[in-house]
Amino acid sequence: MGTPAGFTLGELAATLGAKLEGDPGRRVTGVAPLEAAGPEEISFLIDARYRPAAETSKAGALLVAESMSGLPGPLLRSSSPQQALIALLTLFHPVTTPPPGVDPSAIVARDAKIDPSASIGAMAVIGSGAVIGPRVLVHPLVYVGPDVEVGEASVLHPRVVLCEGVRLGRRVTVQAGAVIGGDGFGYVFDGGGHRKIPQVGSVVIEDDVDIGANTTIDRAMLGRTLIGRGTKIDNLVQVGHNVEIGEHSIIVAQVGISGSCRLGRGVIAAGQVGFADHLTVGDGAVLGAQAGVSEDVPAGERRLGAPALPILQAKRIFAAQKQLPDMSRRLRHAERRLAELETRLGIAPSEPSETGSADDRA
Amino acid sequence: MGTPAGFTLGELAATLGAKLEGDPGRRVTGVAPLEAAGPEEISFLIDARYRPAAETSKAGALLVAESMSGLPGPLLRSSSPQQALIALLTLFHPVTTPPPGVDPSAIVARDAKIDPSASIGAMAVIGSGAVIGPRVLVHPLVYVGPDVEVGEASVLHPRVVLCEGVRLGRRVTVQAGAVIGGDGFGYVFDGGGHRKIPQVGSVVIEDDVDIGANTTIDRAMLGRTLIGRGTKIDNLVQVGHNVEIGEHSIIVAQVGISGSCRLGRGVIAAGQVGFADHLTVGDGAVLGAQAGVSEDVPAGERRLGAPALPILQAKRIFAAQKQLPDMSRRLRHAERRLAELETRLGIAPSEPSETGSADDRA
Amino acid sequence: MGTPAGFTLGELAATLGAKLEGDPGRRVTGVAPLEAAGPEEISFLIDARYRPAAETSKAGALLVAESMSGLPGPLLRSSSPQQALIALLTLFHPVTTPPPGVDPSAIVARDAKIDPSASIGAMAVIGSGAVIGPRVLVHPLVYVGPDVEVGEASVLHPRVVLCEGVRLGRRVTVQAGAVIGGDGFGYVFDGGGHRKIPQVGSVVIEDDVDIGANTTIDRAMLGRTLIGRGTKIDNLVQVGHNVEIGEHSIIVAQVGISGSCRLGRGVIAAGQVGFADHLTVGDGAVLGAQAGVSEDVPAGERRLGAPALPILQAKRIFAAQKQLPDMSRRLRHAERRLAELETRLGIAPSEPSETGSADDRA
Repeated sequence: MGTPAGFTLGELAATLGAKLEGDPGRRVTGVAPLEAAGPEEISFLIDARYRPAAETSKAGALLVAESMSGLPGPLLRSSSPQQALIALLTLFHPVTTPPPGVDPSAIVARDAKIDPSASIGAMAVIGSGAVIGPRVLVHPLVYVGPDVEVGEASVLHPRVVLCEGVRLGRRVTVQAGAVIGGDGFGYVFDGGGHRKIPQVGSVVIEDDVDIGANTTIDRAMLGRTLIGRGTKIDNLVQVGHNVEIGEHSIIVAQVGISGSCRLGRGVIAAGQVGFADHLTVGDGAVLGAQAGVSEDVPAGERRLGAPALPILQAKRIFAAQKQLPDMSRRLRHAERRLAELETRLGIAPSEPSETGSADDRA
Repeated sequence: MGTPAGFTLGELAATLGAKLEGDPGRRVTGVAPLEAAGPEEISFLIDARYRPAAETSKAGALLVAESMSGLPGPLLRSSSPQQALIALLTLFHPVTTPPPGVDPSAIVARDAKIDPSASIGAMAVIGSGAVIGPRVLVHPLVYVGPDVEVGEASVLHPRVVLCEGVRLGRRVTVQAGAVIGGDGFGYVFDGGGHRKIPQVGSVVIEDDVDIGANTTIDRAMLGRTLIGRGTKIDNLVQVGHNVEIGEHSIIVAQVGISGSCRLGRGVIAAGQVGFADHLTVGDGAVLGAQAGVSEDVPAGERRLGAPALPILQAKRIFAAQKQLPDMSRRLRHAERRLAELETRLGIAPSEPSETGSADDRA
Repeated sequence: MGTPAGFTLGELAATLGAKLEGDPGRRVTGVAPLEAAGPEEISFLIDARYRPAAETSKAGALLVAESMSGLPGPLLRSSSPQQALIALLTLFHPVTTPPPGVDPSAIVARDAKIDPSASIGAMAVIGSGAVIGPRVLVHPLVYVGPDVEVGEASVLHPRVVLCEGVRLGRRVTVQAGAVIGGDGFGYVFDGGGHRKIPQVGSVVIEDDVDIGANTTIDRAMLGRTLIGRGTKIDNLVQVGHNVEIGEHSIIVAQVGISGSCRLGRGVIAAGQVGFADHLTVGDGAVLGAQAGVSEDVPAGERRLGAPALPILQAKRIFAAQKQLPDMSRRLRHAERRLAELETRLGIAPSEPSETGSADDRA
């Protein structure tokens, strides 16, 4: 079995644990999106939004959920179609890894320890005392600073920077251009200028974490910045000094997390969310895109808006805001009607007090 | 004609197709901003906001629009002053290109194809199967991955990363630090952790696209992420996997475009705009700075705010929001007046219902 | 005195100018956070939020403010505890600098001037005509373009890019991955496409400026982009072409400053703030996180929100927005009560005018 020859639908059904409706001898040579797939390719329908594209697709077969009905043509039905898709893509696109060893153009400090099964790419720089574990891939132009540790089977894409003393667990993937362990942003104004507080802590990245392209994770002032096991961080995210993120959280692109925040386990922060400093965000909290989180968030709570509010409240406010110009007009109209009634009843119309009372800000 | 000797106003008028008011023999040796220009330099007034600076400028000559009146001194009047400014700047600052050839410190895979007219800078890394077209400039420390194609006269500034299989058209400029073709952000939770969906698609950048410094454009999960011809992308922009942007669009700094969005032709997204995933944005749509785009945008529509609304509606809401504390006070006052009237008429004051009715959210 | 042996509290009190309460002969060997410190380490309590942690800390001594009362154990009392903390951290974590000289793997143009006391790291590229001052540290994989000047004792962390002609003052620190001097984002639409306006200006960074990881600062179209003395810029910040920032300002992560903005001295822009182009922001102005600054800001003013408003007004609006769904309900209720009263008095209920009056938008 190999990609050029492809796989029969029977082979795929067996490998993916899927139920085949169609000819088990039919052969497909690649995976393609619904619109682009031809009769020699397999495609998939997992997100129901794409059903119309599935109905007109020329794909030779479709991977679908067990319950999907009404689609023609050969189908591979899976009880966990997303997992099956991962298997399918991996089958047709096996990861190729460079051979182990150190590229002759790399600069490796004499006292760095490189596992013989690791691969160090062209022009990479490995600092003094660094430890590179088994089967680690260090792509070209990567900088691994002094005393950095990179755990087994981790992958550093081109041009990643790991500053002095940073520790990565096993199976950590860092996309190109990310900077881990830059100085935190801490200053004290001494009357003449901002004096920098030395940032002498470190960064610890636990197992199975992914970090996106050009993302920045600052070292702690003292102690450590911590990214918990299994957490996935997207591109261009900023993680400030002394932040701790729990396990299996999801941080989408361009999120900014200010210093000393504690995010729990399974937190989801959608794109462009900002967290003020020193906040505690409980396990499983969900922050909607562009939320401005300015206070602690209890576990499991969903927040939206800037400043972020509980999601139902935020949505009710968004809805009411649309009525606001209309409300303004209706309020003026009501005031005129009141004045008319007061006139009829011989009551002197009163003006609202000019100075706001305490509850004006409630 | 050369920069040290400069140009006479007569020469400039001829080259720029401008109408000269002044001495054609007068010579200027450089272009400078209005405040900084001396009598030997030419400056320009295109944006009317700078008129006061033009009136006090010591510049030896000014490039202005045909209709500009009331300015003293030698003037070059152009019917398209912005185009003339481009020509003027290019004249005084001709682009110097490094000589063709591969720097001896670059690492080029044996089977990469480098056009002899291309220039490959110091410490650049060119992967296996890559194709570098005629007159391409690859600056130092650039990473060009396996099977990447870079079209004629494209420029890769220092430290750009093009991941495996990315394709750039002709005259594409990528500023320093941009990462094109990093993995998209796609995971499936399998109960124990987030499993990564293999990102096996690619990125296609069409002709005449510019991409800003430290911008990230992710590869498609399957198929391709596409940046259409002539589109200009600023710094620190995030383009998610499977996004398609049409021709001649403008994406300003720090915009985030979530996965599978389709932006049309001539779309303008101002700074820090965020797009939720799977949205369709029609041709010529304009999104104001920091807009949070959470639903499809019809062609030609202007939207503002978060969540983004049609611009007039958004501006009306912004205006009404400023009145909101006042409205709150006036509403309370109106309620007191109502209670007073009801008392006079012997009507029992009623309380608003505590449970919101359906249209509370309308 | 040395780090392995640590320091006695008496020695620390003398060095930091602090008043010791406790045994001057007691020895500590490191600084640690309150929760992590053991009896052989010193910790500190400056931010009162951490008082509970101080009360249960096992630290062998605490650095505190003079006025801090009720804490047990050895205390070092300082009249300026933050400055003392900087001294303390520096004492235990002295900065180690690489030896002067040019790494043999660096590529230095023949006509670049490198001060003999400067250190040029592995794989760094120094362009033609560049001037590197005394005691400058250029870390590995840095790109210093042609005609760049880097002043005395500045530090360029790994993979920094300084494009052609950029000038850095003395004691400037640039974190990894920052790009200074990329092209500004300026185009003119000529009917067929966006034509680029040549960006031929430069960037000037004055003394004592810090610049964060992966931050981008664009060169001026003409003239210069200027970062004033002592200003500190965090990670992933975008500074557009021709921006000028005054002295001692603080720009927090992910801020975006559009072209030609003038920020004064001592301005503070919190995280993710956006500035529209051509704005003037006065000395000492403070912009709250995620603010959308769309008009000039007077000196000393604090603004919040998007669009940004004076902070008290913004907070009043945020508070009133929370009442908005309730106000909507109460307004409807008031209208019903009005109709009831009008019926009683035999007045025909009137409808609010459908066409908004001029002050609807006030």
